[in-house]
Amino acid sequence: MSADTARNETQIEIMEATYRALCEHGYADLTIQAIADEFDKSKSLLYYHYDTKDEILIAFLSYLLDQFSIEDAIDRDESPDEQLWTLVDEFLPESPPDEHREFQLALFELRSRALSKEAYREQFTRVDRLIHDAFVDVLAAGVDDGSFREIGVEETATLLVSTVTGAMLRRVTTDDDVTAAREAVVDLVESRLIADGDD
Amino acid sequence: MSADTARNETQIEIMEATYRALCEHGYADLTIQAIADEFDKSKSLLYYHYDTKDEILIAFLSYLLDQFSIEDAIDRDESPDEQLWTLVDEFLPESPPDEHREFQLALFELRSRALSKEAYREQFTRVDRLIHDAFVDVLAAGVDDGSFREIGVEETATLLVSTVTGAMLRRVTTDDDVTAAREAVVDLVESRLIADGDD
Repeated sequence: MSADTARNETQIEIMEATYRALCEHGYADLTIQAIADEFDKSKSLLYYHYDTKDEILIAFLSYLLDQFSIEDAIDRDESPDEQLWTLVDEFLPESPPDEHREFQLALFELRSRALSKEAYREQFTRVDRLIHDAFVDVLAAGVDDGSFREIGVEETATLLVSTVTGAMLRRVTTDDDVTAAREAVVDLVESRLIADGDD
Repeated sequence: MSADTARNETQIEIMEATYRALCEHGYADLTIQAIADEFDKSKSLLYYHYDTKDEILIAFLSYLLDQFSIEDAIDRDESPDEQLWTLVDEFLPESPPDEHREFQLALFELRSRALSKEAYREQFTRVDRLIHDAFVDVLAAGVDDGSFREIGVEETATLLVSTVTGAMLRRVTTDDDVTAAREAVVDLVESRLIADGDD
């Protein structure tokens, strides 16, 4: 994670400690002590910056979102359809490493807080808009250079956000694996987007 | 809700009380007392059948799933594309009444329990398979009678389950409304399925 000018070094170290603690414990079992255990400095310094677990976690989501850059996520030298696959892999990896699974699980615990807490709701509105904008960016590039058909970029991006979010949720809350959902996305992209893939 | 031979009358009344209490209080604020308040018989009868809130709720999910019948949800006299819209409306209504919203919210609270509790996970695996099978049923009928193209029925059903689940989740956890997601599903169905809708 790179430095962010709006946060001081201590806050960034707290965010990195929060990431590790969240992967290890999940939301429900997370305590400020567990974050402090991952933090090299004193626990009082942690309390100086944040009062509650939810306050740290909302700051953490905001930090994550500030870190995300479409330019870091994709390689502009690749073709738009390769870029699109990179994005799908980013959000819905085929065989995620354990850390990714743990983190995704924790993210859904945090998202379920958005059912009742406005501060979480704001952050997840940002999450979804960011994923949406990343898809729009890549889809528009593909329509521009003729590698994708003249599809509705906004509608397709909206569809992909819902599909990817739903597939991620189903991966962590059902016994069905995500292979079928990934294949369905591949199939959607190929039948709908690829310009030479006429029926 | 119709009677189910596997449950006695008291159990069915408990399930109906659970539905009302869940819509009113959501999962987090739900207590056995709140269910008892909606139940006409004695609280001790409720405890005779169930020990914990989670035990009642898992029985409730199982009851809901046993109630669901594709034949009740759709009208076979309608064309397959009308049946498909009926299903999309069932899972992702355009402007859901308050009770529907409250219930959907509660369902996601229950789904988030599936992140760690196997008994919830089993029920939500059933939920998703049931939605999937309902889509397969209607899609296959449309391919058979020529009103849908020769699409991969399984893949399309899988895609629709993830999309509809993701759109429902986003409706209850972000500030974005679901209109765009519904339109994206409409657009998907029309561009992909409708046999005379060639590009």
